[in-house]
Amino acid sequence: MNFCSNCGATVKQRIPEGDTALRDVCDQCGTIHYINPKMVVGALAEWEGKILLCRRAIEPRRGMWTLPAGFMEMAETTAEAALRETREEACARVELIELYTLVNIAHIGQVHMFYRARLPEPVFAAGEESLEVALFDEASIPWDDIAFRSVSLALRQFFADRAKRDFHFRTYDLAPQTSF
Amino acid sequence: MNFCSNCGATVKQRIPEGDTALRDVCDQCGTIHYINPKMVVGALAEWEGKILLCRRAIEPRRGMWTLPAGFMEMAETTAEAALRETREEACARVELIELYTLVNIAHIGQVHMFYRARLPEPVFAAGEESLEVALFDEASIPWDDIAFRSVSLALRQFFADRAKRDFHFRTYDLAPQTSF
Repeated sequence: MNFCSNCGATVKQRIPEGDTALRDVCDQCGTIHYINPKMVVGALAEWEGKILLCRRAIEPRRGMWTLPAGFMEMAETTAEAALRETREEACARVELIELYTLVNIAHIGQVHMFYRARLPEPVFAAGEESLEVALFDEASIPWDDIAFRSVSLALRQFFADRAKRDFHFRTYDLAPQTSF
Repeated sequence: MNFCSNCGATVKQRIPEGDTALRDVCDQCGTIHYINPKMVVGALAEWEGKILLCRRAIEPRRGMWTLPAGFMEMAETTAEAALRETREEACARVELIELYTLVNIAHIGQVHMFYRARLPEPVFAAGEESLEVALFDEASIPWDDIAFRSVSLALRQFFADRAKRDFHFRTYDLAPQTSF
């Protein structure tokens, strides 16, 4: 941030009185500009044992597979965000079952959440941000081409829980990925 | 938002190409300024059956009681946010048990989350944003003076679950409050 979005003056980075963190502060109008983590919300939808995945048409990770998910918008709930993203990216109308996975990715300021969901009929299509959308059974999940680690976590949790017929909500923390 | 925080030009509200929502767009440098919901994270900490509450020293709801909680910061996890807020507002070091309550408050663009936690010893004090901090048993919770509905929800969930000795994660949606 360079300029105050309120008055247009140049902002300075400093720790405001009573605070402990560096903020973008405007000394002209007094606005303190906070930056907070964002939520990415999506759905892990099942139809006859198969999971709905989208192949990304956009960066990052263009060409790789993901659960339908995206940034939560103002004035919607986490459930509404999951339904909207599934509609937009997979042209599918799913029924949410429960909030199932929450993944902290602190180093990029994101929290990813996935709902477990039911696809009532195999009706879907590639939305604007998808190259293709398809159903995968457990044996055919393209593990090496999954776009995001949070998606891999949710899928592994799902198949492990399904094997035990015991689904429950879990949280995870992802640290920066080391490359070899 | 009036000015572009990147280049300082005046922003306009319009729907960018390929988008469906109104955004603050800068036609000079091309930046699209997204505004997303924020997370408020806190702890519901128990010591010998009593719950740790803080009386707010700041607006909104100055003078009313709340669970220690606050806006999640960049580069921290939801658990780290709950621990930090409890340290800052109640000067208490708690041990988190599990993410317990998630409350959508879509009309103000917030998601509140509370961890269930253990206060290992009755050591606490009022932090800068608290007038006082105290332990309350179920019968003495100041229900009429609880600052936020999400806090009341989490407390009611806790006492109901505790009575059944069956704690589990739940989500809620809060609509705008009607006044009578």
